[in-house]
Amino acid sequence: MADPATISPSTLLKDELDIVIPTIRNLDFLEMWRPFFQPYHLIIVQDGDPSKAIKVPEGFDYELYNRNDINRILGPKASCISFKDSACRCFGYMVSKKKYIYTIDDDCFVAKDPSGKDINALEQHIKNLLSPSTPFFFNTLYDPYRAGADFVRGYPFSLREGVPTAVSHGLWLNIPDYDAPTQLVKPLERNTRYVDAVMTIPKGTLFPMCGMNLAFDRELIGPAMYFGLMGDGQPIGRYDDMWAGWCTKVICDHLGWGVKTGLPYIWHSKASNPFVNLRKEYKGIYWQEELIPFFQSVTLPKDCTSVQKCYIEIANQVKAKLGKVDDYFNKLADAMVTWIEAWDELNPSGASKSSDLPNGPSK
Amino acid sequence: MADPATISPSTLLKDELDIVIPTIRNLDFLEMWRPFFQPYHLIIVQDGDPSKAIKVPEGFDYELYNRNDINRILGPKASCISFKDSACRCFGYMVSKKKYIYTIDDDCFVAKDPSGKDINALEQHIKNLLSPSTPFFFNTLYDPYRAGADFVRGYPFSLREGVPTAVSHGLWLNIPDYDAPTQLVKPLERNTRYVDAVMTIPKGTLFPMCGMNLAFDRELIGPAMYFGLMGDGQPIGRYDDMWAGWCTKVICDHLGWGVKTGLPYIWHSKASNPFVNLRKEYKGIYWQEELIPFFQSVTLPKDCTSVQKCYIEIANQVKAKLGKVDDYFNKLADAMVTWIEAWDELNPSGASKSSDLPNGPSK
Repeated sequence: MADPATISPSTLLKDELDIVIPTIRNLDFLEMWRPFFQPYHLIIVQDGDPSKAIKVPEGFDYELYNRNDINRILGPKASCISFKDSACRCFGYMVSKKKYIYTIDDDCFVAKDPSGKDINALEQHIKNLLSPSTPFFFNTLYDPYRAGADFVRGYPFSLREGVPTAVSHGLWLNIPDYDAPTQLVKPLERNTRYVDAVMTIPKGTLFPMCGMNLAFDRELIGPAMYFGLMGDGQPIGRYDDMWAGWCTKVICDHLGWGVKTGLPYIWHSKASNPFVNLRKEYKGIYWQEELIPFFQSVTLPKDCTSVQKCYIEIANQVKAKLGKVDDYFNKLADAMVTWIEAWDELNPSGASKSSDLPNGPSK
Repeated sequence: MADPATISPSTLLKDELDIVIPTIRNLDFLEMWRPFFQPYHLIIVQDGDPSKAIKVPEGFDYELYNRNDINRILGPKASCISFKDSACRCFGYMVSKKKYIYTIDDDCFVAKDPSGKDINALEQHIKNLLSPSTPFFFNTLYDPYRAGADFVRGYPFSLREGVPTAVSHGLWLNIPDYDAPTQLVKPLERNTRYVDAVMTIPKGTLFPMCGMNLAFDRELIGPAMYFGLMGDGQPIGRYDDMWAGWCTKVICDHLGWGVKTGLPYIWHSKASNPFVNLRKEYKGIYWQEELIPFFQSVTLPKDCTSVQKCYIEIANQVKAKLGKVDDYFNKLADAMVTWIEAWDELNPSGASKSSDLPNGPSK
């Protein structure tokens, strides 16, 4: 195994990683990221009014998809892609042909580490993805593959090779990712604590996956990264990334892959409106009390040997067990199946990684 | 629930916490801890030659037990207390009459936080023990009860009260707690990373519990904190705290209590001899490959409603399932039962917390 400490990740994956950005506005925030993002290809998913022109700063290599593109490329299957919600970003995962994805919100800026140095979030995510995970036993000194750290006394040697890392979940300085009730109660709370750690979330443990600053191995886990039905015409919002996180974690646990959280931090600039968020969230806040026990008890049969098979199985269980919570979950289960069908259509198995899309993007 | 941020822990628990120190030498290391430890009562467990006098710096309130005391107090049951191994410290847990225990090795000194301030390790442990744990779902911003942090979006509200904290596992700067093979391979590695976090180890996940810098709620989990048979006359050493950690974690998971790890750091001054450690450890390194799957699969029946019942059940399962790994585990299982018998003798249920020991200590 390559020593992660010696990897120079930013150059290594230049042609193997797409940056996916959902947006409704001009992408001025990219200026701050230029030193880190410019070598990479961007996939911009324009939400809302497709007639609006989105300005992208000079010098970035990108493709941009608006709603018209999504409808044209997916046809009737476009129904599975949310509208007027950043959940639309998952369309970008689907049309990418790269091995890795990094997705970031357009209100996220470059954070500084405690020494005052700009944090190259993408580089840290790549390090996280290229080094193994350790989901079967907890290492008290955190990431054992990091320079200066290792497995501690009592860590079984048979588990020290680790497993492939499927997901790298990054964090946020300044505005923490709180729900509407917490935002309302603590409007002035800011996250100022830089915790210098990356860790594997243990097998069997669920976590709240935030889509603001997230990287994953698309070849491993891509088909599970569906951000659900949110926004326009749906009874719920702000649970897109949570849904993807629960499905992803359950599938990673089943297939023996790792999910990491911790570094890197980005600077989250602006809290969204808590009153609007409350309207989007309130059903989710109620429903999640049933969703978490559901995902904690999901078991996938042994013949679910691919992400797609796992995902379809979860969709079936969603319909069988959550349909009675609300009819929304029947719709969501159908959309999950549609998503997999669309994914497989755009990503035919055995196709060359560099194969063209069936329909090109706007740009 | 009291807001942990407003608790002044060091004064709060002065009469409710004992500091347990196993040693074979004069306790000069206490000088450095004087500002933090002097208000507390110490229980010193003298290992090795009982005729040797151990010097304790002036001004500390302590009781000291040597092997003669242990034999006198426990009679034939003294066989469950290890000799010539720091595992003997668990005798101190048994004779304490306090609600909380902090145990520390005599080669551990006061560490500094990144701002250069001395870390009051005991105060941080008390904060950890007095605030709840969250073993059922992972919070990506770490301890949600800490000032400046909270539960993130997507964390189920029904789980935000948390559960009682049974164990607080602290870490080490300078010399990391490595096994002999890692010490041999990386003789110069030092832990210089201060990770500013406390977290709950999720339910169902085992961890390597180190006894160097450890606090626990003795009333909750004390009877599970048995450090096993190590040292003189035993085929294994340096697995005392690991054994206690595995048993404790399984029982905490069963009874719904939390185990935290992270802050506080102590300064671990001197690496032990890796060649000596290898001799002590090599059977454990081999055996733990069977012990971890065993503890991962232990299930405790519903009628195990007390720590003692859980512990006896684990002892039975150790005998049934690990006895075939080595006869040592039959002896260990018997010692586990003896330990519980001795614990219950010294801690009769319903007895006043301030009741005297059946036999007084040396001092």
